[in-house]
Amino acid sequence: MSSNALVSAPTLRARLKQFIEHNTVQRVLLALILINAVILGMETMPGVMAAIGGYLLTLDKAILAVFVLEIAIRLFVHRLAFFKDGWSVFDFIVVGIALVPASGPFAVLRALRVLRVLRVLTFVPSMRKIVGALIQSLNGMLSIAMVLALIYYVAAVMVTKLFGQAFPDWFGSLGASLYTLFQVMTLESWSMGIARPVMEQFPYAWAFFVPFILIATFTMLNLFIAVIVNAVQSMHDEEHKAEHAADVATQQQLLSQMQQLQQELVQLRAMLNKPTAE
Amino acid sequence: MSSNALVSAPTLRARLKQFIEHNTVQRVLLALILINAVILGMETMPGVMAAIGGYLLTLDKAILAVFVLEIAIRLFVHRLAFFKDGWSVFDFIVVGIALVPASGPFAVLRALRVLRVLRVLTFVPSMRKIVGALIQSLNGMLSIAMVLALIYYVAAVMVTKLFGQAFPDWFGSLGASLYTLFQVMTLESWSMGIARPVMEQFPYAWAFFVPFILIATFTMLNLFIAVIVNAVQSMHDEEHKAEHAADVATQQQLLSQMQQLQQELVQLRAMLNKPTAE
Amino acid sequence: MSSNALVSAPTLRARLKQFIEHNTVQRVLLALILINAVILGMETMPGVMAAIGGYLLTLDKAILAVFVLEIAIRLFVHRLAFFKDGWSVFDFIVVGIALVPASGPFAVLRALRVLRVLRVLTFVPSMRKIVGALIQSLNGMLSIAMVLALIYYVAAVMVTKLFGQAFPDWFGSLGASLYTLFQVMTLESWSMGIARPVMEQFPYAWAFFVPFILIATFTMLNLFIAVIVNAVQSMHDEEHKAEHAADVATQQQLLSQMQQLQQELVQLRAMLNKPTAE
Amino acid sequence: MSSNALVSAPTLRARLKQFIEHNTVQRVLLALILINAVILGMETMPGVMAAIGGYLLTLDKAILAVFVLEIAIRLFVHRLAFFKDGWSVFDFIVVGIALVPASGPFAVLRALRVLRVLRVLTFVPSMRKIVGALIQSLNGMLSIAMVLALIYYVAAVMVTKLFGQAFPDWFGSLGASLYTLFQVMTLESWSMGIARPVMEQFPYAWAFFVPFILIATFTMLNLFIAVIVNAVQSMHDEEHKAEHAADVATQQQLLSQMQQLQQELVQLRAMLNKPTAE
Repeated sequence: MSSNALVSAPTLRARLKQFIEHNTVQRVLLALILINAVILGMETMPGVMAAIGGYLLTLDKAILAVFVLEIAIRLFVHRLAFFKDGWSVFDFIVVGIALVPASGPFAVLRALRVLRVLRVLTFVPSMRKIVGALIQSLNGMLSIAMVLALIYYVAAVMVTKLFGQAFPDWFGSLGASLYTLFQVMTLESWSMGIARPVMEQFPYAWAFFVPFILIATFTMLNLFIAVIVNAVQSMHDEEHKAEHAADVATQQQLLSQMQQLQQELVQLRAMLNKPTAE
Repeated sequence: MSSNALVSAPTLRARLKQFIEHNTVQRVLLALILINAVILGMETMPGVMAAIGGYLLTLDKAILAVFVLEIAIRLFVHRLAFFKDGWSVFDFIVVGIALVPASGPFAVLRALRVLRVLRVLTFVPSMRKIVGALIQSLNGMLSIAMVLALIYYVAAVMVTKLFGQAFPDWFGSLGASLYTLFQVMTLESWSMGIARPVMEQFPYAWAFFVPFILIATFTMLNLFIAVIVNAVQSMHDEEHKAEHAADVATQQQLLSQMQQLQQELVQLRAMLNKPTAE
Repeated sequence: MSSNALVSAPTLRARLKQFIEHNTVQRVLLALILINAVILGMETMPGVMAAIGGYLLTLDKAILAVFVLEIAIRLFVHRLAFFKDGWSVFDFIVVGIALVPASGPFAVLRALRVLRVLRVLTFVPSMRKIVGALIQSLNGMLSIAMVLALIYYVAAVMVTKLFGQAFPDWFGSLGASLYTLFQVMTLESWSMGIARPVMEQFPYAWAFFVPFILIATFTMLNLFIAVIVNAVQSMHDEEHKAEHAADVATQQQLLSQMQQLQQELVQLRAMLNKPTAE
Repeated sequence: MSSNALVSAPTLRARLKQFIEHNTVQRVLLALILINAVILGMETMPGVMAAIGGYLLTLDKAILAVFVLEIAIRLFVHRLAFFKDGWSVFDFIVVGIALVPASGPFAVLRALRVLRVLRVLTFVPSMRKIVGALIQSLNGMLSIAMVLALIYYVAAVMVTKLFGQAFPDWFGSLGASLYTLFQVMTLESWSMGIARPVMEQFPYAWAFFVPFILIATFTMLNLFIAVIVNAVQSMHDEEHKAEHAADVATQQQLLSQMQQLQQELVQLRAMLNKPTAE
């Protein structure tokens, strides 16, 4: 950047900020994301790819170029503050994935490119609000989730030691046990698929599985209830508090008026006492 | 239609409207729907069909004729306003299906004829109210459902690219992936049936399935909570608002009476001041 | 019954009523039910039956005799009013089953004898209250359950016509379809077990199963929510109404006292006016 | 212990109490538990065990020694009161398991040693609070759980008698039936895995399974609702009661001030009457 550019930078930044936050620009970007979503969907269809695959890939790259430009502008406009906003970081990562050469060990990144479509969440305010609410509702259940994680870890270590040698596919390592217990927790084939075969070798295995399911389900239930109660509570807090504040205000008004009344009566009595004293 | 009929049309419309909305007519139509429901059920029994199949089919056609006549009358009575009412459109489609010749590519329509029985919902007010409430409760969860749909679409594209070639039956096309992910979301055989076989070829597949289940389940949970909170809230709104309005009214009464009191005291003081001044 | 007995019947009835409703008698009967529960459990153990089977069966019959006597006394005491109480009818049926000779086509009744143990519910007030609450909570969801039943019936007829011939085990008759759709509604093996095999012959079968699951699950969810909201509402009604009544009473007290005050002021002014007039 | 030690015991007890309840000591113990958790996890990895297994086992034993010392100190400090605190008993059992020689029939205890990690719950107050709340929420559902247990027992006896001989693996004994019915209650493979095979021999078996699932699910649903309603209620009780108390206080204040006003008026009238009487 020349010194000339540096001098005019403040104005350029302000103008770019105005440009990138302009309603029309935002709408064009949202439209591009939606078009990109359709293109990425069409790329999974061999018939379509054989016919117009080249056009699709070119269009995909063009849209990606626009996104990179957009992120670059926002980075230039907001500088380091860009990374303080969760949504900006999300956009940065999701667009950034597409720039990593997806070859060799990174081939899986090619599939992750579709995460770009999730940028719709950044651009539609109502969706942004919902995702924000979802993430915030996680806070209220953090400590109960940690209790669940602890129980889960202890159960995984226990099960690895108990059944690991006999059933290496399911409980051979801590990772395998964690995965299998997650499956058991979702109740998927826990009995016919896992517990019954295990019980053929360890007849008392039910003494692990049944309490584990009861405890895990009950704790998860309480996790959900915590979320429900929080939601109902915050609903209350919004409407009820305002209403109650109005009630309190009216009552305060009543009280202060009553005090005025009393003062007036006191003055009245004083006034009456005077002529009598005369 | 002769010119004579056109002249008398307004009267005819009013009389037909009265006729079709008459309680007895409505009850007869409801009875016909229920009889039709039983007939359609009996048509699935080969034994019954062999014995009295001819009678059943004739009766079925007769009832259908009555329904067609009813819809025709209602169309004549309400004209284009008929199509503004969701329930009328529902009746129109559901009866209309039976008139399409169900042969060749439309053979499946024969099975859809039983949808006619759902007209019970149109005729029983309490059921109509419930379906209305169900549809309305969908509104409150629309934006969260769209977030879920977006996540779902992105996951389907991703999974088609990742596992499509290796598991064409499950993830071969976008449609197949959407169906399989719906199955995974209902937790049906997600691990033993889908994830474990996939993990045999892609050992890190759990890194897709476990987060997908956690995110999908958590978002669905929040969808349900939204419905519950909305229901509790509207319950509150009905009873609480009325109650609170009564409270506010009483407090306003108290305030106004207190102001009267104060005015009376002011008058009293004025009265007392006068004789003293004299 | 001799004429003598008939004369003394009122006294006998009163004395028997007192006897059968006596606390100790009730406790003995409850103890007998619990002992019976253990005996019926032990009767399923071949080892125990080989050793002391004769004693158990004799004891079982003795306890049954006591129950029959108890029911007979209650019938004699309450006469026809006996059958107006749901719990009494329940006791009557459950004890009566044991008296039917369980041979030939009624062999299954032998297994139903254990239902006698459910009489614990009749004898423990707290459990009786819960079952009452459960049954009552069914009322609030009756109309929504009927909507679900209607959808369910229509789906069963449709599915029998569509897939009945190709999959007679699952959809061969209306009964088979109803059972299979119940299984699908519980999400048990709906995809791997039912929908995927069906889709191999009818590729568009998902267009039935996916909407059916969505509608059935959503309607059931609303059934549950109705129960929850009712429960929360009745909880409110109990505590909140009383509290609100107290608030209203206090406000009425305030209003009436204010009116007294105003009257007193009116009197005061009248009193002040008189001497001035003099 | 020498007589000298006995004399100085009170001081020693107080000093030990101070030491063991000291913040730093508590934090060190929590750190040891977490390190122990990692060690117990690493013990399940053959690679790690081959490399540094000896160190790990030594470290494990050292940490265990610290725990035993800690429990011993707390026992010495609190004496019998130690066993009155649920958390202390929990710590005692969980540490005690590790001291039992885990050989022969007690080999399974080796796996239970990981339960020690659950002591995190004892040391982190927020987790302790949650587990307390979970256990307390069990109270509110005790009687409904007993109804469920009763239904469950009756169903198990019935099913053992009905299907026990034909399907010994699933319903051969009371224990097997209880386990299978638990599986059915979680809806895991209840139809394809259990009910359909049974129905091939007993065509009316659905008449047991479908009502059992409906009743068990409905009762469990009500169990959950009880927990939710309790949670919402206690939430209300906390915030609402305080708020209502404030309202009542304000209203009492209003009432008492009004009484003062009235008294003042009475005095005023008396004052006015006196000069008139003169």
